[in-house]
Amino acid sequence: MSGRLIVVGLGPGDPRYLTPDAEDALAAAEALYGYGPYLDRVPVRAGQSRHASNNREERARATTALRHAAQGARVAVVSGGDPGVFAMAAAICEEIEAGPDSWRALDVEIIPGITAMLAVAARIGAPLGHDFCAMSLSDNLKPWPLIERRLDAAASAGFVIALYNPVSRARPWQFGNAIERLRRHLPPTTPVIFGRAVGRVDEHINVVTLDVADAANADMATLVIVGSRDTRVIARPGRHPLVYTPRAAAEVSA
Amino acid sequence: MSGRLIVVGLGPGDPRYLTPDAEDALAAAEALYGYGPYLDRVPVRAGQSRHASNNREERARATTALRHAAQGARVAVVSGGDPGVFAMAAAICEEIEAGPDSWRALDVEIIPGITAMLAVAARIGAPLGHDFCAMSLSDNLKPWPLIERRLDAAASAGFVIALYNPVSRARPWQFGNAIERLRRHLPPTTPVIFGRAVGRVDEHINVVTLDVADAANADMATLVIVGSRDTRVIARPGRHPLVYTPRAAAEVSA
Repeated sequence: MSGRLIVVGLGPGDPRYLTPDAEDALAAAEALYGYGPYLDRVPVRAGQSRHASNNREERARATTALRHAAQGARVAVVSGGDPGVFAMAAAICEEIEAGPDSWRALDVEIIPGITAMLAVAARIGAPLGHDFCAMSLSDNLKPWPLIERRLDAAASAGFVIALYNPVSRARPWQFGNAIERLRRHLPPTTPVIFGRAVGRVDEHINVVTLDVADAANADMATLVIVGSRDTRVIARPGRHPLVYTPRAAAEVSA
Repeated sequence: MSGRLIVVGLGPGDPRYLTPDAEDALAAAEALYGYGPYLDRVPVRAGQSRHASNNREERARATTALRHAAQGARVAVVSGGDPGVFAMAAAICEEIEAGPDSWRALDVEIIPGITAMLAVAARIGAPLGHDFCAMSLSDNLKPWPLIERRLDAAASAGFVIALYNPVSRARPWQFGNAIERLRRHLPPTTPVIFGRAVGRVDEHINVVTLDVADAANADMATLVIVGSRDTRVIARPGRHPLVYTPRAAAEVSA
């Protein structure tokens, strides 16, 4: 009896982004764990148990899934996007480190997926075509001053910035504050991309400039990409613009 | 006659990482363009022309593919990993902006893929589980002092750093210089992951600490992830370690 825990990245939502590797892992599992809306994306299969939980219960989900795997089951924990980017893979590792030694003997596999920033970027051009960073704006697990420090560092050094978790009901002011912060470093014309529910039926992408970027246009399903000084917008008659960051860069002004 | 240009992300190499969306786009193309070794991953199909080029010829490849699409053809440009991350999507956008107006009328689509840092991270745990950045170490298109400035900014602000293109025959000293630079900011015990050819038959992953990280262990097929102060290593008897960055972070020391 050797348990197995697989953390599966579902990608942005539509099955056309689900890799064969992820598909096979889902089919082979005896038990599925995950945040309800992600689990709902996985077709029901006979002989598989399904364990939906709330998105605030990542830690409890991880320990329950690990216990189940330690009993010898083939367990899959599903994650939206890529499990390694602000998702379940780190939560699983945290619990393995804190848990019983037997959990270190488990067969653990993580299956990558298309993370939100790649899906949003692909829809609008190539905004991540040059150096970039990815930050979660949630201050549930880190102090807000640290987030501000990172925004300052990234913007002033010329990184494009992908912002995950810009807002939630419990975090109403943070994204507006982040926009204000970025305006200190970047020109008013800097392109800002709001990508909502990309890869799903209610997908919506909007490109604005930093001077008019409005935090009210983001919700929990939104991924935001803030360009650098080099990011460009190509207008196209009758089509959405292409937003991209050139591969070449000159020196960054201080 | 309406031309169509699709930039397709092939992922890390093995077909199990190729999304159905990418698979469909490859099947529907009349002409395929790409760096030879990437093109070699795509099965030969009747009625499709194939145009391999050198990896130093991104610009020429982009213009040739755009011209072909502007003649009304369904053209696919293939890219390893994700086309938007240090790959062909930005090159295509650059040429559209510089080219004739008719190129702005083309139907352009970019299909995301699993980029190397996600594949490497998944293999070893969750090193990108907290804020991170992605940088190309190539100074072909940006000055080396700018790269150093970005390494300083990212490491001192607590970002995990994924390094693309660490070395090439024409750039022998840069990666060693980058390691030295990062040692100014990060503890000697900081985990460094060398992921070579992940997702291919000759895959090799190695985890070392920053104090002994040796630039000679990277080549053109290597993706390097340098942890932050918070990145942890879980030893596992008889298995490779799990390397992860916890979701929570405290203040970064200056």
